[in-house]
This record gives sequence, C-alpha cells and structure tokens, in this order.
Amino acid sequence: MTRIAVDAMSGDRGARVAVDAALSCLAAHADLEIVLVGDEAALKTEIARHRKKAHAERASVRHAGEVVGMCESPARSLRQKKDSSMRVAINLVHGGEVQACVSAGNTGALMATARFVLKTLSGIDRPAIISPIPSQRGHTLMLDLGANAECTPEQLFQFGVMGAVLATAVHGIESPRVGLLNIGAEEIKGNLQIQQAGKLLSDSQLNYIGFVEGDDIYIGDVDVVVCDGFVGNVALKTSEGLGKLIAQFLREEFSRNALTRTAAFFALPVLKAFRLRVDPRQYNGATFVGLQGTVIKSHGDADAVAFASAINVARMEVEQRVPERIRELLAENLGE
Amino acid sequence: MTRIAVDAMSGDRGARVAVDAALSCLAAHADLEIVLVGDEAALKTEIARHRKKAHAERASVRHAGEVVGMCESPARSLRQKKDSSMRVAINLVHGGEVQACVSAGNTGALMATARFVLKTLSGIDRPAIISPIPSQRGHTLMLDLGANAECTPEQLFQFGVMGAVLATAVHGIESPRVGLLNIGAEEIKGNLQIQQAGKLLSDSQLNYIGFVEGDDIYIGDVDVVVCDGFVGNVALKTSEGLGKLIAQFLREEFSRNALTRTAAFFALPVLKAFRLRVDPRQYNGATFVGLQGTVIKSHGDADAVAFASAINVARMEVEQRVPERIRELLAENLGE
Repeated sequence: MTRIAVDAMSGDRGARVAVDAALSCLAAHADLEIVLVGDEAALKTEIARHRKKAHAERASVRHAGEVVGMCESPARSLRQKKDSSMRVAINLVHGGEVQACVSAGNTGALMATARFVLKTLSGIDRPAIISPIPSQRGHTLMLDLGANAECTPEQLFQFGVMGAVLATAVHGIESPRVGLLNIGAEEIKGNLQIQQAGKLLSDSQLNYIGFVEGDDIYIGDVDVVVCDGFVGNVALKTSEGLGKLIAQFLREEFSRNALTRTAAFFALPVLKAFRLRVDPRQYNGATFVGLQGTVIKSHGDADAVAFASAINVARMEVEQRVPERIRELLAENLGE
Repeated sequence: MTRIAVDAMSGDRGARVAVDAALSCLAAHADLEIVLVGDEAALKTEIARHRKKAHAERASVRHAGEVVGMCESPARSLRQKKDSSMRVAINLVHGGEVQACVSAGNTGALMATARFVLKTLSGIDRPAIISPIPSQRGHTLMLDLGANAECTPEQLFQFGVMGAVLATAVHGIESPRVGLLNIGAEEIKGNLQIQQAGKLLSDSQLNYIGFVEGDDIYIGDVDVVVCDGFVGNVALKTSEGLGKLIAQFLREEFSRNALTRTAAFFALPVLKAFRLRVDPRQYNGATFVGLQGTVIKSHGDADAVAFASAINVARMEVEQRVPERIRELLAENLGE
C-alpha cells in the first residue's frame, strides 16, 4: 500500500480541487491511500460529495489549522505556521505515516519547510527542483528549476546523479544521457563553474554526453539537462511565456473574420488534439529531489486534472524508491 | 547617404543570399549605399545578375581574400585572418568609409574582431548582444544574448542604458520600461549581483520597473529586459527550441490522416498568417551594442529576406546615431 499526504489547502484553487484530484487517483489505483491535510470540517464536506464511491474509504483527513499564503515569506511560514497544512503534510512524511506528500503551495515555503523537516540525503548539499519537459521525442528532465540561484560544480554534479536516477526509476530510461546546459559562442564557452562540473560528470559513471544548449531541451537528444536554478527557472518561465504567446497568436488568427472562423470550425478537432498534446497539466508535478523523503510540488493554479498528475508523480516515485536509489547511485559514484 | 558594409562571405548560405539581400535593401532605400565585402570575382558575378537595375549602381565591392569559418576559434581568426571578409568589413567601419557593417559569420569571431578593431564606447566595459523578441504587445528588447557569460552589476546597469537608447532611437519608445531578469521564488530572490544591479538601475534616470521573470519577456509589460549573456542565451535558444517543437506538433496533427489534411486545407490561409506573424526572419539582426561603431549580426542560416532585415537594422541604427546617443545617455546618468 502506498500512502501519500496531500496538502489540500495551500494552492490558489482551494480544497475542492485537491480533494477531487485525490479521489480520482484513488479510483485509478487500488493500492493507494491518501491523507488529506487541512481544515477538517471543510475537507470532510468535500469528501462527502464522493461518499458513495468505495474508493473514498481510502481517503482520510488530518486536521491542520493554518494555511501558508502564496506570497508569504518562507522564513516566516517556517517559524510561525507550525500547524499549517503544508507543515503537517511534510511532518507526516518525516514521521513515516506516509511515504510522500504533494502540495500546490508556495515554492519557497515548501522548499524551506521540506529541507528543515526532512533534511537532504547524505552526499547531497542542496535539494533541487526537477520536472519533465515535452520534447520532439518524448520528454527531457531538467534540474534545477529554481531552488538554487547559484550552484557549485559539486552541486551540479549531484543534480546529474539525481536526474539520472529519476530518468531510470520513474521514466524507464536505462542509461539516461546527461547533458550540462551551456551556451554556444566559442569565445565564451561557459564559465569556470560549468567547466569544473563538466569534469566531475565526465569522470563519473553517468552517461554524460557533454554540453547542451537551450534548444536541445526540446529536441530530445538528451534525457537529463543539468543547470543552476536561476538559469533553469528563467528557461522554464520563458517557455511558459512563449507558449502562451503562440496560443494567443493562433487564437487571434483563427478569430480574425468570418472566413478564418469557418477555418477554425474545420480545424477544431486538430487544434484540440494539438492542445491536448501540449497541455501543461499532464506535466504538472515537480519533484523536490535530494531530500530524505518525497515531496512533489504542484502548480499553484492546478485544476483537478493537473493536481492528479502531481499525485501520480508522487505515487510513482514512492513505488520506485527514488530517494533510496539516489543514495545508492551517489555512493557508487563517490566510490564508497 | 548611409553607407553600410556587408560581409558577404561568412554565413552558412554564401554570397548569393548576401548580394540579393543587399540589392533588395538598395531598391527600397534610395539614400543607401552598400559595400559588399568578399571574393571580388564571385561578388561581381552575383551583382551582374542584377545589373539592369538602376539601384545596383549603389552596390560596390571590396575584395577580401579569406573567410572566417563558422566554427573557427575567435582568437585564431582574429590573429590569422587579417584579410577575411569579416575583418575587412569591420575595418571599413573603423576607417569611416562606412557607418555600419553586417555579418552572418560566427558570433564569437565577429564579437572578438569588433571589440579589437572598434573598441567599446567610453563608460562601457563590454559590448552586449541585443535583439527584439516578439511579445503580446509588439516586442521586447533583450540583452545580453550571449556575449558575456558573467557580468558585474555595473555591466548590467550599462546594458540597461544601452537597451533604453535602442528602444527609443530605433523603436520609438519614449520612456522605455527597463526590467532586470530575476527568478520568483521568495527564498532565493536572485543573487547579490542582481540585487546590486537593481540598486544602480533604481538610482539612475532610466524608467526602471524592477525585477521581471522569464514569462514577462513575451507578455510585453516591459520594453527592455536586462540579464547576463549566459541566461539571455539560454532563454533565446530555449525559445527557438520550443518554437520548433510547437511547429512540429502542429504539422504532425494536421497531417495525421485524410480528415486532418482536409482541415489543414481549410485552415491554410490562417496557418500562413500565423506563420508570417511568428516568422523569425523579421526579427533577424542582433546588434553588438556598446562599440564605437555599428555592427549587426545576422543569423548564420539567414535567407535573403532575413539578411535584408539585418541590413535594415544597421540602416536604422546609423540614421538614429545609436552609438552617439548611448554615450550621451551614459554621460547623463553618470552625471558627467
């Protein structure tokens, strides 16, 4: 039985989305139990809407009286909100009552709390944020997506190890190709930190393929792209922005006049298939990797479909024993 | 009369594209003269194809016996290829025979040669690469796109000044909004270098609007986005990669079966309008800003339409006296 805690209060959309997502995951996976964390009365009301379904019995509630705000400072929430749904959910992981937790709460607070409560794995200096990104051949895992603005070569190397483990354990890639994100102009081939990280990766047992550039993320000739959290976050946000721009341009062109609206009518099934294919909801669920425990961050604005994707990421990582496997691969590479 | 040198040999596509682009610019602008730099015989043959056109008289040829390879090291090309089309074109700017030059050659070599021959403006530590990027409301200027992997706060401030000048001079924006690219997570609000650059920008006379994130580039609430060349290059390449991915997905969905191909037939005019709107060729032509002279980099793979866009960028920057105006704005801001 896999047991997952869901922080049902911290996202932008409230408890209903979290409860609906949890219930749909329970319906799909008979060996799953979910502990919904948050205001007991509110959560019980939400669950009651599903009470006729047998799988609802595998949902339980753990009360937490506070909620961390989406813009609250991580330090403040860590210090002052010890009964927040976020904190209680992470405590459940630490206490062993559940094997993972999922939260749509604010990234900074979730990371600070997870680090404080769970601690990092031995051999890992700092946890990172990793997520799959769609590519021409499937998807590429990228880390760090924003937990560490500046990284040492050793940290970048550790990111490579963690990314490789996730690629194998969760995505079934036997010998994942690991690339280090760099820029192309000859004169300025990256900085010293990246050169040194490249050396560490070359000397390791990882399938390190060398430097990659920004466009390689979407081509799919690399399975794991390693970068610092500043660069990774900018790349991710830039992509989000461009995706929205293209969607807007398409909408505008198809609604320009009667003729283009007729074209849109004919193209609708294709446009729908296209939208489904680039639907970011299926990629929801970023892993805070490198902790002694599994913590998954859902997009704050996730709907029930997206939130369920994040819960599924947690489920798969628990089943695949990701933290343990990172520790093992790290030990091999450090020759311990 | 505006005189521009075009390095006609260094791109991926050879002299014909450069000559065709030059001739189309000459046809469009009666006050323009272009010096085509490269193998004299080859260029004269290309120009001869246009000889019946009156505007072809405003094209002249300057012989250069060597070509810098697209993958050649900047240091080597600078030291050993003193008669390259790239070097000769930049020499013409330095000698005052032309007011700007355009090259589709390799970025590192072009930047190294331009810095060596032209030197930076007083008050500018290092030149940067700047280019407009399409946004929901027009376009955003972004720099540095890859000339400087690491930047001091002072350099980032200078980028802000240069970007603001270009936004006003070339793009007609009266009080351009300048933003500093940062990441959002509260815990890790950027690094020290960015905090300090933000302070310098706040204290200046620029219309500094504070930190922006990756998605803001495409939203259009900011006119100039400042970042170091590593981050800027990753953002640019990532966008290129995502653009290609989305184009491929659209193509695949529309060619899936007879039904979707019929839909494609009806949607064709709309898809064409869409493609025209996101056509990167109209954004070709990145400025090497901060030099004592105007140097424009065309994409190596540019066709004649794209190459002509780059020549037009050069023409506009000459007309708007960009280098002089940067010197003036810098002097104002440094209180000289």
